[in-house]
Amino acid sequence: MPLDRRSFFGLAGAAGLGAAIGVPSTLALTGQFNSASGSAVSFYGAHQAGITTPMQDRAYVAALRVDTKDATKLQKTLKEMTAAAERMSRGLGAGAIGAVQGMPEAPPDDTGEALDLPAARVTMTIGFGASLFDSRFGFANKRPANFAELPKFARDEIEPEKLGGDILLQVCADDDQVAFHAIRNLIRVAKGTMSVLWLQSGFSGASKSVSSPHTPRNLFGFKDGTSNLDVNSAGETDTHLWVDTDWMAGGTYAAVRNFRFDIETWDRSALLEQEQVFGRNKGEGAPLGGGTEFTKPDFAAKNSFGEAAIPTDSHMALAHPSHHSGAKMLRRAYNYSNGADRVGRIDAGMLFISFQKDLEKQFVPVQKALANNDRMNEYVTVIGSGAFACPPGLKPGQYWGYQLFA
Amino acid sequence: MPLDRRSFFGLAGAAGLGAAIGVPSTLALTGQFNSASGSAVSFYGAHQAGITTPMQDRAYVAALRVDTKDATKLQKTLKEMTAAAERMSRGLGAGAIGAVQGMPEAPPDDTGEALDLPAARVTMTIGFGASLFDSRFGFANKRPANFAELPKFARDEIEPEKLGGDILLQVCADDDQVAFHAIRNLIRVAKGTMSVLWLQSGFSGASKSVSSPHTPRNLFGFKDGTSNLDVNSAGETDTHLWVDTDWMAGGTYAAVRNFRFDIETWDRSALLEQEQVFGRNKGEGAPLGGGTEFTKPDFAAKNSFGEAAIPTDSHMALAHPSHHSGAKMLRRAYNYSNGADRVGRIDAGMLFISFQKDLEKQFVPVQKALANNDRMNEYVTVIGSGAFACPPGLKPGQYWGYQLFA
Repeated sequence: MPLDRRSFFGLAGAAGLGAAIGVPSTLALTGQFNSASGSAVSFYGAHQAGITTPMQDRAYVAALRVDTKDATKLQKTLKEMTAAAERMSRGLGAGAIGAVQGMPEAPPDDTGEALDLPAARVTMTIGFGASLFDSRFGFANKRPANFAELPKFARDEIEPEKLGGDILLQVCADDDQVAFHAIRNLIRVAKGTMSVLWLQSGFSGASKSVSSPHTPRNLFGFKDGTSNLDVNSAGETDTHLWVDTDWMAGGTYAAVRNFRFDIETWDRSALLEQEQVFGRNKGEGAPLGGGTEFTKPDFAAKNSFGEAAIPTDSHMALAHPSHHSGAKMLRRAYNYSNGADRVGRIDAGMLFISFQKDLEKQFVPVQKALANNDRMNEYVTVIGSGAFACPPGLKPGQYWGYQLFA
Repeated sequence: MPLDRRSFFGLAGAAGLGAAIGVPSTLALTGQFNSASGSAVSFYGAHQAGITTPMQDRAYVAALRVDTKDATKLQKTLKEMTAAAERMSRGLGAGAIGAVQGMPEAPPDDTGEALDLPAARVTMTIGFGASLFDSRFGFANKRPANFAELPKFARDEIEPEKLGGDILLQVCADDDQVAFHAIRNLIRVAKGTMSVLWLQSGFSGASKSVSSPHTPRNLFGFKDGTSNLDVNSAGETDTHLWVDTDWMAGGTYAAVRNFRFDIETWDRSALLEQEQVFGRNKGEGAPLGGGTEFTKPDFAAKNSFGEAAIPTDSHMALAHPSHHSGAKMLRRAYNYSNGADRVGRIDAGMLFISFQKDLEKQFVPVQKALANNDRMNEYVTVIGSGAFACPPGLKPGQYWGYQLFA
C-alpha cells in the first residue's frame, strides 16, 4: 500500500532527527489516503486527463523552454516528471527520493504544502510546441504534417516570453493549493533541463454554479461556452477533438491564448453595448432576439430598428459553429487576475485554452474572423499565444513523450 | 423579497432590448437565492466579518489611496461601498442602479461574473491606515493614541506602492470568482474617490484539510498557526483581539506584511535545514524534540549533540507566545503565487495578516525578534507592510467609517 503525503513526511522527520514522533498512522494510512483517492482522476487512459475532464475550479498553466540539447537528459527528465505527476494524481507527494531513505541532508522530494489535502481532482496535461520538433533532439520526423506555430493574428500584441514554448503544462484541480503544489513540483523536477517561460493561474466558478448546465462566465460577466463541444458525444469528439493518425492518435492539439481584459473601460460601458458585443443578454445568456441560453440563435432576426438583432460583428456571430462549416472546438478557458498594474488598474483576463483535432481547420479560421472584426477587440489585448500537440494518454510504464524517443 | 443576481440581469436585459426573454423565474427567485443565503456570512454584527470567521479558501486584499480631499465625497463613496458590500454578502449583485431602472445606456451596477454563484461565505472587511488620520479630512482627533504606521524592520525591502495605504479592503470567500467579483466591484464603486495601490490574491487549503484541526500550511510546506489565538475563547479575544475603548471598541488592528518566498532556494535546501528553520518537523508539525502538533514545545530540550533541540533562532522559538509574555495575535495569513518572474522563477509567498488589540505591544515585538534573528530570513524578502485600524461591525443603516464623520 502506498504511503500518503503525510505519512511520508512524518516518517522522514522521525528518521532524520532520531526523535520518537507519534505519527497518527490510522489517519495517515487510511483516512487521508481514502479521502485522496475519492477525489482522484485517473492519470492513465486512452486520452490524457484534463481535456474532457469536467472543468476544475482552478488551473495553473505554464510554458517551458527545454534548456538542454541532450535528448537523453530530456528523456530522463520527462520520465521523472511523469512519475511525479502519476503520484500526485493519486493525492500523494511528488516523490519519495532522499528524505524517505533516511537522508535528512537531502532536499525533500515533495514540497509539502499539499500534505493534508485531498487529490481534489488534480489533472496534469502535457503538450509539445512546434519548436520541440526542430533539430535539437531528432524529433523533426515526428512532427505532424498539419502542426505548426499559430500565425500572428490581427491586433496580436504578444509579449516575447508568452509566445510559443517547447512544453506546455496544464494543471487543474478543485483546490488552489493542490494545483499550485502540482505545477510547482513538476517545475522543480524539470529544473536544470527546462525553465519557465510563463506561469499563469486561473479560476472558474463553473463547478459551483447554481444554474444547470454550468456554463462558466468570463470576467466581462457573460456566459462563455454555451455551444461548446459535447464531450459525452463520441460523434463530436471523434469528429472535432481526437486525432486518429500516427503517434498522435488519441491526442489532440491545444491552442492557448492570453486575453488581457480592459476591466475599467468595460465596467463603464453601457449594458446595451455589452450585450451587443457578445450577441447575448447578460443575465440569462440568451441570444439577442429572444429565448433562453440554449435557444438556437436566429442570425436573420431584426430588432425594432430593422437592424440585425444579433450584430454581425458580435462575438457570438463571428465565432458560432454555423458560420464555420460546423467546426467546433473544446473550449476550456480559465479567468485570471494578477493583481493591479503600476497605475492601479486591475490586471485580469482570460487564459483561453481550446482543444481540437486540427488547428488549421478549426481554431485558426475562427480566430481570424474574431481578430479581424470582433466588437470585443476594443476591450481586450492578446498578450500570449501558443499551439501545442497534446499526445494520447499513457499506460502504466509509459512516460510523457515516449513516442518521440521511439 | 430582494431580487437575486441573475434575475436582476435577466430583467435588465429584457427591459433594455424590448425582447420577450424567458427568465426562469422559479430558479432565479427561489432556488438561487436560497442557495446563496445558505452560504452567506452576516455583514452586520458587533465585529466585522472576516476576522474571527473561519478562514475561507480564497482572499483578495487591496490597499487603496484616497484621491479626493473632499470629506463629503469620501463619505458618499464609503456609503456606496457599504451598500454594495452588504448586498454582495447576501449573494446578490453589488447594486441595482442603472440598468434595472430600464436604462440600458447606463453601465450595469454589477459586473456579472458571480451571477450564477452562491455567496460562498464571502466577507468584506475594511481598515483605515494611519495616513487617513492626517489633515485632509478632519479625522486627526479620531486617531487612536496607540495607532501608528509600522516601523521599518530589519531587512525590510518594501516596494514603494506596497507601503501603508489609506484604506485596506480584505475580501475572503470559498470561491475564487466570488472573491474576485467582490473586490472588483468595491474598487469599481470607489473609482474617482480612491485608487488601488496594490491588489494581492491569496489561497489557503485550510478548509479542505483532511487533518483536524485544519492548521493551514505555508508554501514552505510547514504548518503555520499552530499556537494561534482561539477565537472561540472570549477570554483570549477580550485580552488579545478586540479593542475596548472609544470609537474603536469592538474593532481591532491589522498588520499586513507581504513575504516573498525564495521558492527555488528553499526547495533545494535539506529537510534537516528546513525543520531547523521552523523548529518543527515537516510532516506532523510537531516541535523538534518529539510529540505531536499540539505538544507544548520544550525549549530547554537538547538533541543528541547537546544542542537545543529547537534552535533558538528557529521561527517557532522566536515567535512563540511564551517568549513574548504570552502575547498572542490572530494570524489569518494567505499563501499567494503571482506566476513567474522575468527569469522564470516562481513568484510566490505569503500575505501575512494578523489582527490584534495593540500593534505596539503584540505584533511589533514579535516581528522585531523575527526580523533580527529568524533563520527563515534567508529564504524570504518582505516587500509589503502596513497597519490598519479595523473598526467595529455595523448595524443596518450604518456605513463604513461613520464614526470618523460623527
